[in-house]
Formats: sequence, structure tokens, C-alpha cells
Amino acid sequence: MSELAPLVTFLSDYGLGNEFVGVCHAVMARRCPQARVIDLTHAIPRHDVHTGAIVLRATLPYLPEAIILAVVDPGVGTTGARGRRAIAVRTVEQDRLLVGPDNGILMPVCERLGGVAQAVDVGRSEECLRPVSHTFHGRDIFAPVAAALADGVPLEALGENLAPEGLRRLNIPVAIMTPGGLELHVLHQDTFGNLILDGETHQLAELGVELGDELWVSHGGGKHSVTFARTFADVHPGGLLLYQDGLGMLALAVNRGSAAELLGADRDDEFLLGRR
Amino acid sequence: MSELAPLVTFLSDYGLGNEFVGVCHAVMARRCPQARVIDLTHAIPRHDVHTGAIVLRATLPYLPEAIILAVVDPGVGTTGARGRRAIAVRTVEQDRLLVGPDNGILMPVCERLGGVAQAVDVGRSEECLRPVSHTFHGRDIFAPVAAALADGVPLEALGENLAPEGLRRLNIPVAIMTPGGLELHVLHQDTFGNLILDGETHQLAELGVELGDELWVSHGGGKHSVTFARTFADVHPGGLLLYQDGLGMLALAVNRGSAAELLGADRDDEFLLGRR
Amino acid sequence: MSELAPLVTFLSDYGLGNEFVGVCHAVMARRCPQARVIDLTHAIPRHDVHTGAIVLRATLPYLPEAIILAVVDPGVGTTGARGRRAIAVRTVEQDRLLVGPDNGILMPVCERLGGVAQAVDVGRSEECLRPVSHTFHGRDIFAPVAAALADGVPLEALGENLAPEGLRRLNIPVAIMTPGGLELHVLHQDTFGNLILDGETHQLAELGVELGDELWVSHGGGKHSVTFARTFADVHPGGLLLYQDGLGMLALAVNRGSAAELLGADRDDEFLLGRR
Repeated sequence: MSELAPLVTFLSDYGLGNEFVGVCHAVMARRCPQARVIDLTHAIPRHDVHTGAIVLRATLPYLPEAIILAVVDPGVGTTGARGRRAIAVRTVEQDRLLVGPDNGILMPVCERLGGVAQAVDVGRSEECLRPVSHTFHGRDIFAPVAAALADGVPLEALGENLAPEGLRRLNIPVAIMTPGGLELHVLHQDTFGNLILDGETHQLAELGVELGDELWVSHGGGKHSVTFARTFADVHPGGLLLYQDGLGMLALAVNRGSAAELLGADRDDEFLLGRR
Repeated sequence: MSELAPLVTFLSDYGLGNEFVGVCHAVMARRCPQARVIDLTHAIPRHDVHTGAIVLRATLPYLPEAIILAVVDPGVGTTGARGRRAIAVRTVEQDRLLVGPDNGILMPVCERLGGVAQAVDVGRSEECLRPVSHTFHGRDIFAPVAAALADGVPLEALGENLAPEGLRRLNIPVAIMTPGGLELHVLHQDTFGNLILDGETHQLAELGVELGDELWVSHGGGKHSVTFARTFADVHPGGLLLYQDGLGMLALAVNRGSAAELLGADRDDEFLLGRR
Repeated sequence: MSELAPLVTFLSDYGLGNEFVGVCHAVMARRCPQARVIDLTHAIPRHDVHTGAIVLRATLPYLPEAIILAVVDPGVGTTGARGRRAIAVRTVEQDRLLVGPDNGILMPVCERLGGVAQAVDVGRSEECLRPVSHTFHGRDIFAPVAAALADGVPLEALGENLAPEGLRRLNIPVAIMTPGGLELHVLHQDTFGNLILDGETHQLAELGVELGDELWVSHGGGKHSVTFARTFADVHPGGLLLYQDGLGMLALAVNRGSAAELLGADRDDEFLLGRR
């Protein structure tokens, strides 16, 4: 595949209402003109590292061989002992290269790929654009470093080694089977009030749950009936359903309504799920 | 042109507020890394097959030689006798290849190109990503099939042949000359209340209409004066005009107002047009 | 670099809510299939030539070697002595090529690059798509001309020479040092009410101003305290700050508020700035 263009996949919370994404593309094209950049999404909610990390992990199975550039960076411009670092890492499996802030956004993908084999602090790399601004590290640090990797610069040439165990991790909950039922957590809430959960379909299989089954969920003091359905239309309007979304994640929804509103639930809330 | 990258043009109703379009790009880059993808638009109104088909047909004269991928798919996940099929087709003229749901979205373009020479059912192609989800066939069926075509896989290798006459067609009206005037229909209404019509400028020429002429339109019981104008500013504020839009289609508009509101008209409504 | 794909950077006010940008991409791919197009931004406020010119100039330092295509064009369709021309120009320094309407949008970039060495009127170029529409010159004139330049067509083959001094210029104010303080002007106001100014940081240095200093600004009859700060969080909520934005431009902002509202200021307004 040596004659193929190197690829970068790019995720951020910059939106498309200004020139930030375009300037990052321009900077990458200057440093590595032969690289192609795929915009995974720039619609991560502003400063929402948690959602950025979850979306990135969920899309991993569909990504081509590519540098992964992910910039959701509420800590941009902070420095010193309490500031966040800018990092590039290589994963244990598949030798994937990822670039972004050291705020945990890259970690869930790395964990899916056996962990971090090598990490470097790229904040003072010669590849950075000078002067490095306080507000736009996507342009001044992350884009040029991703382009340098795409151009074949080795990771160790981009900064000092960091101990992988010192990288920041997000506290993303994990669904577990308990005697009382499957314990699930809300990873995020989309604009329709659907609640994306951390459960996996194989965990439903362990419960013996099949499509069409009637289940219960409890949250706070309340207990609700819910159908494990394929699509919204499989339940009556106003009905609660559990389904697998387009990215393979379990989610709670209300047909023509809002699960968040019906259940009074929000991110990180805990649910118990069982068969009726 | 053998050394040129194969092209795919991509139209959908996915919007850019999530990662759907980016994931489809990623899937195509995995299957055919050398292909380039041009985003024609992803702003087709949600589930509006009709508008998707009309926009696709209107842009056809400007498209390069490319696989045409069009996904507006309210029937996603339906299967069996009443479900919609996933198809790839080749046109009689120009040997164009198109991929999308069998809900009519591809047909107006095909009709402009002499009809469908060959059609296959790609829903069970080996190119599909497994398991095929119930909700995201853009990722699991249409994108990988389009990429396979871009990679040179022949149409017949992607599924069983379908009879072209069995493909679903949209009931898109056609403007015709009648003794009472030119009969026009509203194809769609844009966000400004402009009414896009199915008439062609050569039909106006047959009526002997020239720029600046005063015409009448009748709709329901009402009859209105309308100027055939080049731009909105050619009529006074609140004035009704007939003009040719950026894609070459005839449209009714009100300068600084809404033609839909003034005329009380909506999609598929019929108008008669004549010279005063 | 001869084997590298030619590049076009594309800025417009078309937005992404319709197919305009996609059609321009398609037209360029037809004319010059090997060219790559980088979307700098399409979110310039509708018909705002002034902001388009300022954003284009501000991003110049980050652009790769590329044809610059910029279309913000309220005068589209106007012709004759009072109409605006369609132009392509080459700059004195770096031999940059730019394409767009002759309404001043290209000029600030040209001035940064030593001025215009050569200019041609491309409105009747053989490269234009016929018939040229009255409303969509991006598709019919600017995109095909940019693609022709990317394909290596020389500027002089695209139309008649124009005298560079006859090109339209915008009246963009310039910050100057006065005895009363640094005279600044509002270039534009963003959606958060931040006021982007024409001052340069070296002018602040001439005033002896350093990060953290307390300054005053006067506007209309009022005089306000303002902190020269690195980020919003460096002042208390409701506090006024002067800072350098992501594109390196000086701006006035209110932490969790609107500077435009606090100061009652709008585009082109004049401010005086001094040390307290």
C-alpha cells in the first residue's frame, strides 16, 4: 500500500460555523500535501470530552488505517503542573497512532487496542507552529503533529517519552451484571432525549433477552416497563423502548418523545435492567 | 484517465450534526482507499425522498464521471415482501453507476440518462458490513457497495439481477402545455417559502414569454399577477415573481416574502400559467 | 513537488444547508480531476464581503500553496458599467493566484503579498459553463476558472488584462497610533458579541502594554476599564477584556457577556485605547 496517500481521521468540537476546521486542513496540507483528511465529525458538543471519547470509540471499527486526530479541549492554554499536555500515542495492537490533548479523549480507543505502547509529549515539538497560541492548539500543535506522523516522522522524534500509566483517563462507567439485574449507566443524551447506555448486546444475551421481550428498568425510585425493540415504530407512541443504535450502542428512547424527560435521567445516571 | 482516482458523489439527509457522513467516508476509504468522495449535499430534509431525487436530478449536468451514492431512506430496516430493496444500477446512456435504496430516489437521474440498463439487489452482497444494522444501511450496505464499484467490482458481482421495470418510481409530476395555459406543479418548497416548479424554460419560450413579461398564475380559486423576472429585486417588495433558480429550475417567489404563504400552496399543488 | 495534486482553498458564504458548495466541488472535479479542494469555510455571513475579506486575510499564514477561491458575492448577476466583474489575479510576492468577484474580497490578501501583479477579467472566459446563470457564478464562472488555473492554464488565457489599480478595494480601517492613544476600529462582530479589531499586537507593544495590564477604551462618550488578558477566565464574570483571538487578531470581549452590548458598539465604530 506504499503508493496510497496517508490518511488522517479528524474529530473535534469546532463545528462548521467558522474557519477552525478549514484552517486545520490547510495546516495539514502544508506539512504533508499527500495526506488525505477524513472529517469524522466536528459536531461533538462544545468541550464535551466524554462524548468525544465515546463517539471516537464507537466509530473505531469503521475507521481505515489512519492517524486519529481528536480535539475536544476545554483545557487549551492551561500549562504547568495543573495544565493538560498535548500527546501522541501508539497503541499496543495494530500500531495505531493517535494525537490529541491528554484529557482522556484518546484513552477509550487505546483501551480497545490493548492499551498504549508508547506516548510522547508533543507540546514542544519542532513541528508546532510558532508562536503557539493560547487558544487554538488544533492549528498550532495537533494538526501539524498529525501531519508529521502522516509524513512518516517517527513518534519518538516528536517529543519526550511519557509513561503510559501517567496519561489521564476518563471515568467512563462500565455496565456490569449484578444479582439485581444488569447495571447500566447513561453515557450521553442526544438532542432527541435518547439515552445512550454503556451496556453491550452480549450482556442482554446473558440475561436471556431477545428482540420483542418485555423488560423493566429502575431508576431513582421508579420502575418502568420497556420493550427491547428493533425500531421506534415497534412500540406505540409514548412507549419506552431499548434498542441498539446505529453505532451498535444500547439506548433508551420514547417513540415520539424523550426518554430523558420520561425517566428524569441524565448523564452518568445508573439503571437496573431485568426481565419481567 | 486510468491513473485518476475514482470518484463517488454522495448525497444524503444525514446532516452534519453527527458522525454518520464521516463514518460513511471512513467505510469507503477502507474498501477503496484511492477513491475520492465529493459531498454533494447532506442537507436534504430528513426522509424527503422526493426532494432528494429532484436535487440529484438537477445537479446531474454538473457532476463529474463518478459513482452516484444517494441515501434518503425512510424505509431503512424494513424487509420482506413490503420492505424496500437496496440497489445498484447502470444507466443506458453514459454507463453511470448509482447506488441507493429502491425507493425512487435514483430514478429521475436514470430517466435523464435513457433509463436503467441493469439493476442488482445489493442488500445481501458480500461487500456489506456484517452484521448489517437495522438503522444505518448507509454505512453497512450503500457506502461499501459504492466503494466496491469505485474499486472496479462489476455490477453483476454485487447481487442478483433485478428487472429494471420492477424498480420503484416516484410520482413526480411533469409540467404540460394545456389549452388553458402551462400546467405546473410544486416539486418542493424551500425554507424561504419559494415554490420550486416542474416547468422548463423552453416551455415558457413556447408560450412566447420573455424576461420582464407580466403573466398570471391560477391556483385553487385565485388568480395572481406575476412577473417573469431575473432576480428578486426586479419586482417591488411583496411582489410575486417567476424566476429560474440557481439549478435552472422555475420557481415562484415573493420579494422579501413567502410565495407559499401568499398563494396558500404546498408540494404537489397544481398551477396554471399564462400571458396576460 | 510536480507529482503532488494541485490545491484549491475555497471560502464562501454559501453555507452547508444546500447543494451549492457540493456542486462547485463537482464542477472543479470535472475540469481538473486531479485537484484537491480544501473548504476553508462556507460560514461567512451571507453577502458580508467585509468579513469574508478579513477572514481570508487572517488565515493566509496557514494556507498551503494553492489557488485561493473566494465567493461572497452580493452583486452576482449585475452587469454592465455598474456591475461587478469576475476576476483572477496573481500577487507580486509568492505568485499566488486568486479567483473571485471584483468587490474587494481578494484585495486584503493581495496587499499582504505585495499587491496585484496581474489581473484578468474572467467573466467571459471559455472556461465558464454556458449559459452563465444570473445567480450562481460560483458554479458557472469562479469554480471552473479556479479549476482551470489548478490544471495549469495561464492567467492570460482566461480573459482580458485589467489594470490592477482599477480593481475595487474595501474600505477596511487601519489602526493608527495617535497622541490620544491607539485608534482602533471594529472589523466585525461575532455571534457572541465579541468585537474583532484592526489593531496589531506590536502596536500594543509600542504602547508598552503587557499581558495583565489595566487599560482604558473610550467609545462614543464613554470610557471603560479593560484588562489585556490571555483568556476570558482571566477577568471576573461581566468584566471587559482585550485579547488576541485564535487568528491572531485583537478583540474586545466580556466574560460570559457581550462586548457589543456593553459598549453599544458595532462594525466600523472607532475606539481609543490607552494605559491607565
